[in-house]
This record gives sequence, C-alpha cells and structure tokens, in this order.
Amino acid sequence: MSQMRKDILTGSWVIMAETNTVRPSDFQFTRFLRETMFCPFCETNEAATPPEVFAIRNPGSSPNGPGWSVRVVSNSNPLLRIEGELGRRAEGFHDLMNGVGAHEIIVETPRHDRSLHELEVHELSDVIRAYVARIIDLEGDKRMRYVLIFKNHGEGAGAHTISHSISQLMALAVTPRSLKTKLMVARDYFALKERCIYCDVLQQELKGRRLIAENADFVAFAPFASRFPFEMGVFPKSHSSAFSRISPGQIENLARILRDVLQKLDHTLGGPPYNLSLQDRPFLRPRAGYWNTIEDDFHWHLQILPQIVRVTGFEWASWFFYNPVPPEIAAQCLSP
Amino acid sequence: MSQMRKDILTGSWVIMAETNTVRPSDFQFTRFLRETMFCPFCETNEAATPPEVFAIRNPGSSPNGPGWSVRVVSNSNPLLRIEGELGRRAEGFHDLMNGVGAHEIIVETPRHDRSLHELEVHELSDVIRAYVARIIDLEGDKRMRYVLIFKNHGEGAGAHTISHSISQLMALAVTPRSLKTKLMVARDYFALKERCIYCDVLQQELKGRRLIAENADFVAFAPFASRFPFEMGVFPKSHSSAFSRISPGQIENLARILRDVLQKLDHTLGGPPYNLSLQDRPFLRPRAGYWNTIEDDFHWHLQILPQIVRVTGFEWASWFFYNPVPPEIAAQCLSP
Repeated sequence: MSQMRKDILTGSWVIMAETNTVRPSDFQFTRFLRETMFCPFCETNEAATPPEVFAIRNPGSSPNGPGWSVRVVSNSNPLLRIEGELGRRAEGFHDLMNGVGAHEIIVETPRHDRSLHELEVHELSDVIRAYVARIIDLEGDKRMRYVLIFKNHGEGAGAHTISHSISQLMALAVTPRSLKTKLMVARDYFALKERCIYCDVLQQELKGRRLIAENADFVAFAPFASRFPFEMGVFPKSHSSAFSRISPGQIENLARILRDVLQKLDHTLGGPPYNLSLQDRPFLRPRAGYWNTIEDDFHWHLQILPQIVRVTGFEWASWFFYNPVPPEIAAQCLSP
Repeated sequence: MSQMRKDILTGSWVIMAETNTVRPSDFQFTRFLRETMFCPFCETNEAATPPEVFAIRNPGSSPNGPGWSVRVVSNSNPLLRIEGELGRRAEGFHDLMNGVGAHEIIVETPRHDRSLHELEVHELSDVIRAYVARIIDLEGDKRMRYVLIFKNHGEGAGAHTISHSISQLMALAVTPRSLKTKLMVARDYFALKERCIYCDVLQQELKGRRLIAENADFVAFAPFASRFPFEMGVFPKSHSSAFSRISPGQIENLARILRDVLQKLDHTLGGPPYNLSLQDRPFLRPRAGYWNTIEDDFHWHLQILPQIVRVTGFEWASWFFYNPVPPEIAAQCLSP
C-alpha cells in the first residue's frame, strides 16, 4: 500500500508509492545537449552581455574581458528591473507594485562544455563565492527583502534557451510564499521546543536510510516527504539561518558535497534535468512581516529537484504531490 | 515595466509581464491527438474497467453494460486505496499514514472522439451531476476529509496515457495545502470584514476588464494575479462553500458557462493543454483542524490552468510565478 507522508518543514502531504522495483532506467528524459551556436556566456564573448556586476578574475585581467572563472551579469531580458520605486498600491480590491528587483545571470564557468557537476572543487567554490558576494551586495538595497538563487539544468527543467551552465539570481521586494510557509512552521516549532526544527531533522537523518552524503560541515539526504523522485536536500550541520554568513572553510566543503551529489545524480540517472535552489532566510528588515527570532528559527539549505516525472492537474489543483520513488529507494540508488 | 501582483485569495505574488503585444499564436504546444488503440472507457468496453461505482444510464440499461452518458469507475492503478485503516503514526521525527482514500475515473462521455468542451449542455450537466453524486457518497466515509476533482486535458497537462475524455477524483484523509492556504486567508478576511472575500472579488470583477463570461448563476474571469497565461476562474455568484449543494438549475448554468469558456480557450489558442480542478471546501468534521465558520468564509470555484509555458526552477524554488500574459490581455483575447 502507498503511504501518505507529511513534510514536517512545510506541513504539506505527499503520496509515496510503495515500490521496491523502481530502477533509474524506468525514467525517461532528454539528456541535456549543448548547441554550439554563438554563446554570449563563453569566454572572449564578454561584449555580448550587459556589463558584469561581479567577477572572480585572474590577476591582471580587465572587467568585461577574458580571464575569469565566474562572471555575474544582469539578465538582458530581466523579469524585474533594478531602477525605480516599488510603488506599492491598490487597484480597486487588489494589491500590486512595480516590477522592481534584480535579475542576474551567474555564469558558472567560462567553458561552454562543462556542467556544474563537472567543475573542479575550486571552481565550484568560486561559484559559491559569487552567490555570497551578490547576496551581500543586494542586502544593502533597502527595497529588497529576499534573494532567490536557482538553476535550471536541462530542457525538462526549463533551460531550453541557454545551454551554457548558469545560475540565476532574483532579488525580490517580497518573500516568496514557499519560504514564508517554511518560516512559519520553523517559528512555531521553536516556540514549542526551543530548538531549530531543521537541526532536529538533520540529527535524525544523519543516522538513517535516507542519507546520501556527508562531510565535516554538510549533510545531504533524500527528504522523508520528497515531492519529486530523487529529490535531495543539502544542509549545513551547524545552525545558520543566512547562507551569506558561510565561512571560507565551509565554502570548500559545500562545493565538495554539491559536486558529489550532482555527480551521483548524473551517473545514477544518466543526466536528468534538475532544478537547484537556495532556500535562504529573508533579509532582516523592519516591517517585513517577520519577527526577531528568525535567526534562531530558520536554517538555510539547498534543494535539488530532479524533473523526471510530469506534474499534472493533481499537483496544480492541490499542491499535493505524488512521488513514485520513496526516498529510501532513491538514497539507496544514489549511494552505491 | 513588469508588475508584481498579489493574489488576495492566497497571499502569493506573481510577476506579470508588461506587454501589449502577446498573440495567442506566440505559444506553442501539441494539440491533443487521440490514439485509436483499444480504449477501456469507450461504450461496449465496460468489462475492461473495474465495476462502476456510479453511472447515469438510459432506462433499461444494465450496470457495467452499454447505454450510459457518464460512468464512474475505480482507477485500476490507484494512488490511494479505499480499504483499511488510516493508521496515523510517527516514524521517529516524521508523520505518516497509510495510503487510504479513493481514486476514481469519471468517464465524461461514451464516445472516444469528444472532449469536454465538445459535449452538449445536457451531457456536461450529467458530468457535473456525477461529480456531485460522488462527493455526497464519499462525504459519508468518516475517514475522508476532502474530495479533489481534477482533469488533465492534453499531453502537456499530464494526460499522456489516456486520450478518452475523463476527470479524476481523489478522496483524501487530509485537506490539501493549497486549500488550507485559501481557507486561512478567507477566514482572516471574514473576521475583519464580516463578508466573504470571494463575494467581494466577484463584485469587482463583474464590472472589470478581466471578465470572460457570465450568466444568471455564474461568472468566469481571468484572475488579477493569474499564475498561468489564460488562467480562468469560474465562480457561483451566490455565496456557497460546498459544490455538492448546487441546485438543479445551477447545474445547467454551470454546464453552459464551462462549455463556453473551454470552447473559447480551445478556439483562441488552438487546443491548448489545460488542467481543470474543483476548489471545494473540506468536509465538516470534528478535529479536522478547521473551525465552525468555514461555510461563511469559503466560496467554491473551478480553476482552469492552461499549460502552455514551462514551469522552471524559479517557480519550484519559490512558488512565485512569472506570467507573460496579463489577465486583461487574456480576457480580451478570450472574449472577442
């Protein structure tokens, strides 16, 4: 019989198939193929993008020229623009504001033929340093309340227009609903237990059947109520609400575990599309609708969602998910 | 400049493109093609399905034989099963229960070559009567708290295995997260205003630029903070929390407006995939985690979500949506 499992971190339920017969080869998807047309994100094509807002460069190289390992530019077709006032206002019954924010592209490598999981640890560390630098910079913009960093790998995950390996960053004047839900659950738990709910979950998962990888600073596991087959979470072992406060030593260990789990995913399933995102706390702002305990309550993490089954009307109607691969099986497949 | 719009009914924000240049032909998708293999849902093939749990039949016809307009059967590969105890329990830190529920198929027509929008009003009325009958029957099962009815039309909406026109029904022992969010927002609004938030929204939309269709009992409009291009909501004009309490006269008017808006969608966009769902209140149960004001607070509705743009890591990371077609434009395209 299938099970219904509750995600303790969001309060949502998932229907989990009961099956011991799932094999990674049961899932079909298109392996990500790189087109070889002109690419604005390749080294030496820097003039084809908006000017860089951040880069990690070789000594002696010049901005907007070659000689970099990671480069951050504004999206040339941004969903949100950095100029202007928020203009929060009513329209009759409704609430709206101007589309003010930032929409940036983090070019993870100068090379067109590399995916994130194919980078060396020191290169992946530079990507993480770029994330940190951009968050800290945007935290200074008082209009912004949240920075969302995400990545679409492969066509099934939405990366059909760009094949160079990139992440995207959006600075938002509101906190996304999914984070608000997590923050409220974590606050209520802390109020009851005086402990971080994520720290408690980690302690249990470190000993369990859903563990995928571990090092001195980080742990990766398949969440108990995974919504997607082969879903993974990567969490710092020490409590921390803000990704941008990561230490230099932790950056290298995060690069190591992220490279490890993305390689496992690629090798086990044969290059599936996936979405990766940073689940960070909002900026600490007065009147943001939060509370002064958020640094105790929340625990940042990465979320990796392979996109190998189609979401249907059931999920869209309910935000209730059906997952054909229990996380215990996923962890077993991923940790041979 | 784009806008950020708040969905007053869920509290979620959507980034809305600013564009006056969208044409329906800008969207690409595969029109739903029906395979012509053996179909268990066609008339005379009744023996190929589990026994019917409900049908609207011609006088003199026999159960599980031909002579019906709508037929409801159990899903032969159900995600949830009706037999057994819920068995709510803990597993260490986590909560789970058995996959107990119902998973039924509502065969909307005996004919393989008809889609929902191609049915006559009296046929579509029978589909609605079948929905009502199944909800009332399942309300008697005290283990169940919610009945979700949804439909996947077209391959991009998840209907790749079955091409006969069907709806699906799931009876659940928990209320889906998306409904819980709506219920909480509606409760807070009623506490403040002593009015139903949906009734207030309808009053405004009846006079506005997002109106798509209207008759004596129902209104259809493109929601202010539509998450999907050409998203539509269909609402009863008179306050009612429970779909199953619909009157016979209302059933016919619901069939009329639903047929009208689905035909508009089909004709305007050329047969797009879509998901349709009923957003109903949960059953009234003691200890369900709700409150005794739910009949005042909530207002049932249908949600129609065309699936013509791909959801990416941005949406999965945040439940924040980007919609390239403002609802004012969608309504204008749909109501020529």
